[in-house]
Amino acid sequence: MKRYLLAALLAGVGATSVMAEDGYRLWLRYDRVESRETRSDYRGAVEAIVVQTPTGEASPTIDALKAELARGLDGLIGRDPTVHLVAGETRDDLGADGYALTNVTVDGDDAVRITANSDAGALYGAFALLRKMQLRESLDALDEVSVPKIDRRLLNHWDNLNRFVERGYAGFSLWEWNYLPDILSPRYTDYARALASVGLNGTVVTNVNANALVLTPEYLTKVKALADVFRPWGIRIYLTARFSAPMEIGGLETADPLDPAVQAWWDAKVAEIYEHIPDFGGFLVKANSEGQPGPWEYGRDHADGANLLAKPLAAAGRDGIVMWRAFVYAFEDTTDRVKQAYNQFVPLDGKFADNVLVQIKNGPLDFMPREAFSPLFGATPQTNQMVELQITQEYLGASIQLAYLGTMWEEVLDQDTYVAGEGSTIGKVVDGSLFNHPVSAIAGVANTGDDRNWTGHPLAQANWYAYGRLAWDHELGARDIATEWTGLTFDADEEASTQIVDLLMGSRETVVNYSMPLGLHHIMERGHHYGPGPWVTGGRADWTSPYYHQADEVGLGANRIASGTNAIEQYAPELQEQWGQLANVPDELLLWFHHVPWDYEMRSGRTLWNELALRYQQGVDEVRAMRATWADLRGGIDEERWDAVRQRLALQEKDAIEWRDACLLYFQQFSQRPLPEGVEAPAYDLQHYIDVDRRFFPGHPGDY
Amino acid sequence: MKRYLLAALLAGVGATSVMAEDGYRLWLRYDRVESRETRSDYRGAVEAIVVQTPTGEASPTIDALKAELARGLDGLIGRDPTVHLVAGETRDDLGADGYALTNVTVDGDDAVRITANSDAGALYGAFALLRKMQLRESLDALDEVSVPKIDRRLLNHWDNLNRFVERGYAGFSLWEWNYLPDILSPRYTDYARALASVGLNGTVVTNVNANALVLTPEYLTKVKALADVFRPWGIRIYLTARFSAPMEIGGLETADPLDPAVQAWWDAKVAEIYEHIPDFGGFLVKANSEGQPGPWEYGRDHADGANLLAKPLAAAGRDGIVMWRAFVYAFEDTTDRVKQAYNQFVPLDGKFADNVLVQIKNGPLDFMPREAFSPLFGATPQTNQMVELQITQEYLGASIQLAYLGTMWEEVLDQDTYVAGEGSTIGKVVDGSLFNHPVSAIAGVANTGDDRNWTGHPLAQANWYAYGRLAWDHELGARDIATEWTGLTFDADEEASTQIVDLLMGSRETVVNYSMPLGLHHIMERGHHYGPGPWVTGGRADWTSPYYHQADEVGLGANRIASGTNAIEQYAPELQEQWGQLANVPDELLLWFHHVPWDYEMRSGRTLWNELALRYQQGVDEVRAMRATWADLRGGIDEERWDAVRQRLALQEKDAIEWRDACLLYFQQFSQRPLPEGVEAPAYDLQHYIDVDRRFFPGHPGDY
Repeated sequence: MKRYLLAALLAGVGATSVMAEDGYRLWLRYDRVESRETRSDYRGAVEAIVVQTPTGEASPTIDALKAELARGLDGLIGRDPTVHLVAGETRDDLGADGYALTNVTVDGDDAVRITANSDAGALYGAFALLRKMQLRESLDALDEVSVPKIDRRLLNHWDNLNRFVERGYAGFSLWEWNYLPDILSPRYTDYARALASVGLNGTVVTNVNANALVLTPEYLTKVKALADVFRPWGIRIYLTARFSAPMEIGGLETADPLDPAVQAWWDAKVAEIYEHIPDFGGFLVKANSEGQPGPWEYGRDHADGANLLAKPLAAAGRDGIVMWRAFVYAFEDTTDRVKQAYNQFVPLDGKFADNVLVQIKNGPLDFMPREAFSPLFGATPQTNQMVELQITQEYLGASIQLAYLGTMWEEVLDQDTYVAGEGSTIGKVVDGSLFNHPVSAIAGVANTGDDRNWTGHPLAQANWYAYGRLAWDHELGARDIATEWTGLTFDADEEASTQIVDLLMGSRETVVNYSMPLGLHHIMERGHHYGPGPWVTGGRADWTSPYYHQADEVGLGANRIASGTNAIEQYAPELQEQWGQLANVPDELLLWFHHVPWDYEMRSGRTLWNELALRYQQGVDEVRAMRATWADLRGGIDEERWDAVRQRLALQEKDAIEWRDACLLYFQQFSQRPLPEGVEAPAYDLQHYIDVDRRFFPGHPGDY
Repeated sequence: MKRYLLAALLAGVGATSVMAEDGYRLWLRYDRVESRETRSDYRGAVEAIVVQTPTGEASPTIDALKAELARGLDGLIGRDPTVHLVAGETRDDLGADGYALTNVTVDGDDAVRITANSDAGALYGAFALLRKMQLRESLDALDEVSVPKIDRRLLNHWDNLNRFVERGYAGFSLWEWNYLPDILSPRYTDYARALASVGLNGTVVTNVNANALVLTPEYLTKVKALADVFRPWGIRIYLTARFSAPMEIGGLETADPLDPAVQAWWDAKVAEIYEHIPDFGGFLVKANSEGQPGPWEYGRDHADGANLLAKPLAAAGRDGIVMWRAFVYAFEDTTDRVKQAYNQFVPLDGKFADNVLVQIKNGPLDFMPREAFSPLFGATPQTNQMVELQITQEYLGASIQLAYLGTMWEEVLDQDTYVAGEGSTIGKVVDGSLFNHPVSAIAGVANTGDDRNWTGHPLAQANWYAYGRLAWDHELGARDIATEWTGLTFDADEEASTQIVDLLMGSRETVVNYSMPLGLHHIMERGHHYGPGPWVTGGRADWTSPYYHQADEVGLGANRIASGTNAIEQYAPELQEQWGQLANVPDELLLWFHHVPWDYEMRSGRTLWNELALRYQQGVDEVRAMRATWADLRGGIDEERWDAVRQRLALQEKDAIEWRDACLLYFQQFSQRPLPEGVEAPAYDLQHYIDVDRRFFPGHPGDY
């Protein structure tokens, strides 16, 4: 009935075709509150809105806040809000970016007061207020205080200047460099709104595989144009720094971090950047990693490299930071790849400048569907550490397969490292509280692109949202976030909402099941990383699959205990006890740490081979169940997004079957055992799967 | 008032953010008719709609027609139309695709009848009816018959399989090959609707610089998925054929067109294509041109090459055609480049199969802002000829600069070739009437991409529209089309509409004035073709600027009369008389045909140098006037598109100034004469303009 009414109303103004739910509005839809009673309640509660900051003064951020409230309240309850700016004392409990929401009266009218110590804090409060109304929460007896646990809450865009997005599956880069600074897409503002709405406050707009061109005067003018759009929304801009930039665009003969001319070049470059962008956030650097230049070329270490850039940033006194990636491994190094970052960075503890943060991927390998956490977390107490999560689904099915990552990140952030005793979670390492670091940061590799719906898969918006919410508060629950996002994103009744949330919650484990169950990892197709490739060999060993799965006639899995690479020794004793013992290790990490005989008896009572085969089958079955759920949901949400998801789930089932069949046929060469009952027979032989021309796959970057 | 009302209504349903006029709807907006009286008239006139075809039967195209009428009438007048299908006699006056609109009554109700000989014709009639209502034309006393003059009305997409669009300035390719055939963007349907709405009936979805991959089984499955979406809208799909495909994907050692194995390969490939796409339209081929492979490698000629592909298409009996491009020139050939196509193709007249058309660019060089027409038109009476127009603005400012091309195409299509006496216009060559050819076609190189508004510049939609309308009827006037498009595209009052139409009508000549006036050509920057480059030298001569402008101490311009390259001899005597004589040649083609002394006295009484300088200045002044007009229009159209155009016009002024200053400073080296009064002094010296790093320009393809 509601839908019908809407359609009828819109037909009258001829807007039907535009009203399609194409996903562009993300979680900021602000559609009219359908219940007259609730609308009336809300109108009564926000006769006015009081914004209280230490200055009580107007600013571009306050203008943005007002614009968002006007947009939101107009949509939700058809009201143009009256906003009063008042000055009030600084509140210690709110930190720099926190906010409080309370009920007050203004001239006898009911009002909501947003209290904050900064304009950005007030902006977050405004978004929180709108979120409550979008979720139909009561505005009576408001008593909410929310303060982010982490200072720098960043997106990392792996966007090249030619608009190709590395590991991007949602179209091309949002940044139309060719048209900047003269042409400003309205989308830049909507991007900034989306970030601010979940409390993100920074963005690295260029790829870690960096192009020095972005540091040229021509490009800095373009970057400035973006920064000017983002600034009112509390978003600071950061850039990736190519370590060899002094040579490539500076005309120097060297990029040696200890060379005075190199230091002078970076000093001048930082000063030049600040001229364009007074609130420039700093640099992100991938150095001596996968072909990127770095300090090693000059016999220097990562601290030398990071401090080179950190020095002029610190000297400028504008809170500029360097985020130096720990994703470092060398093919010349025959050490187990997952041990190398720890080996490199632990000896450097204490050598990094105060405004350097070492940016560590959640796992020691590379964003696998599941891996053990990086043992580097907490292992360098004198060094600022931050976590890098991957929102884009490089190894989890691109924007075709459904994988809600809130559950994965919850697993990571709640993981106990035991480095300072029980309760030393990664969340506490990253928020700086464990070792009392004054600067903290978190990064998420963006899944955004210029697809109309921003993220390709309509439900992948949930990952962007969840990342933002966890960046704000890493103790939030994945289910709560999924529930919130679903409420904001769809007009679904309670039953349908629960179905969607359940679907999201199980989805990542489903991908694990049909692709890399039981701790398997890095057995995907080379290059585009979409689809199975347990047979991938050739080239450097640590880019092949057998390096990781170690399948042989005896069994399967990477031996990382003492009898093997002993990667386990990099973890706290408590974890060595849990994970290093075959009897204790959870099924999920079994083949990550152990090479296990095919007939090993699992907790289920099944052999490893049978368990493995049944997990693959389970993954396929779960996708089928997801498809059935989604078919049920037809009519429960809008048709356009429903159909987009339907198409993707259909392809996901094909993909899951291919993963299952290809991997089981491949491993069967070693196990020499039949598939257990309950596992469907593959439709083709192994060679068929090996021969599939993967140039035509959805995840392929299209560089042919 | 109307705007306010709309906003108020929409606020009530919370759709403000989506109602933004982002240009996605093109000229198919179907917004509510604002006048109650007109709405009432329309409702009365279309109580029913009768669709009369020879069969009177339902079909996917009839379903598309009904869907479009439902969408349109719902939007315009809030009515769900009643459509009656009736069978009627074939009407000779309507051809294959024409339609008639008349008033009839059905059970006493007023109705409009659409009569056609095909379902596609009926669909065009439905769009015509909707267009009338969008333009607020009366539906009383309907008596309209409209029949296209050309059979195949095609878009050519220079879209690579990796989604990069060669010479595309509106984002990336619409075709998401990686996601086909499983994921179908709703945009494919809207694309087909847009084409059908102006009567286009075919699309070549791949680049003329072709990739043989598109002919692989994997890709044909993807192409089929697109063809299935397009078919109900009367759109046939065509592909570019890489001449060496039998070697690249077929495993043959040769692509020699006279080799039986090669013929067999193409025979089988055509059969395979028809299995996927029963209404496949045929091939477009660029061969032996700019590095593309072709029959010359084997000592064969273009007719041999074209007939190789034409044979299996003809044998299948499904109206498949080969469009063989005449854009052929060789750097080994020292003949004036503009003469080479004529020299190549005239001797082949009579050798091409009946289902081959030679596709000729309007000019003999390459889509310059203005050039003389290609003398090949009409020069091969036994050969089917079609024209290729360029909708995308490769040499006219990409999607930054405003250049309505309706005026240029009108100039081209109305141009008299005199090949069969006076009145032998290019339009009549192309529609087949001049030499009674049974097959006719026209191609326009698309300016579309995945930008939200399809064409980058909001007003560049007018070029897509104008191309479509002229493809239907090449005798339509450019101003009438501009007026129609403006009426469909904006909610502007009469004064504002006239301002917009005037702006469009003058815009191409403005680009000519500030970039290449008086018949200058090919003096743009190399590579991206955006901005001035009269100094461009190096590499093959016919890709340099001096080859064309021939500036020296004596004067300026290409000598193409008898004392020079004698390109003029390829034209009819009447044109040799007009253009070959300095006294007769119009200013617009002066430097195309003549090398003219700097002090030559022009019709204006000025010297060539002064005239040239003042034309450049005039171009700048005209852009400034356009900006002033546009500033005036604020509020007269929606803010979003107004602002997008405002930004582009501001950049266009900068560009125009650069063109003027760079070209005048460059030519001044030769003329050694001062700038006349009224021409602004350049801000920099020549070297500054030469040194500008054009990697950062809007028109740059971004391949760094």
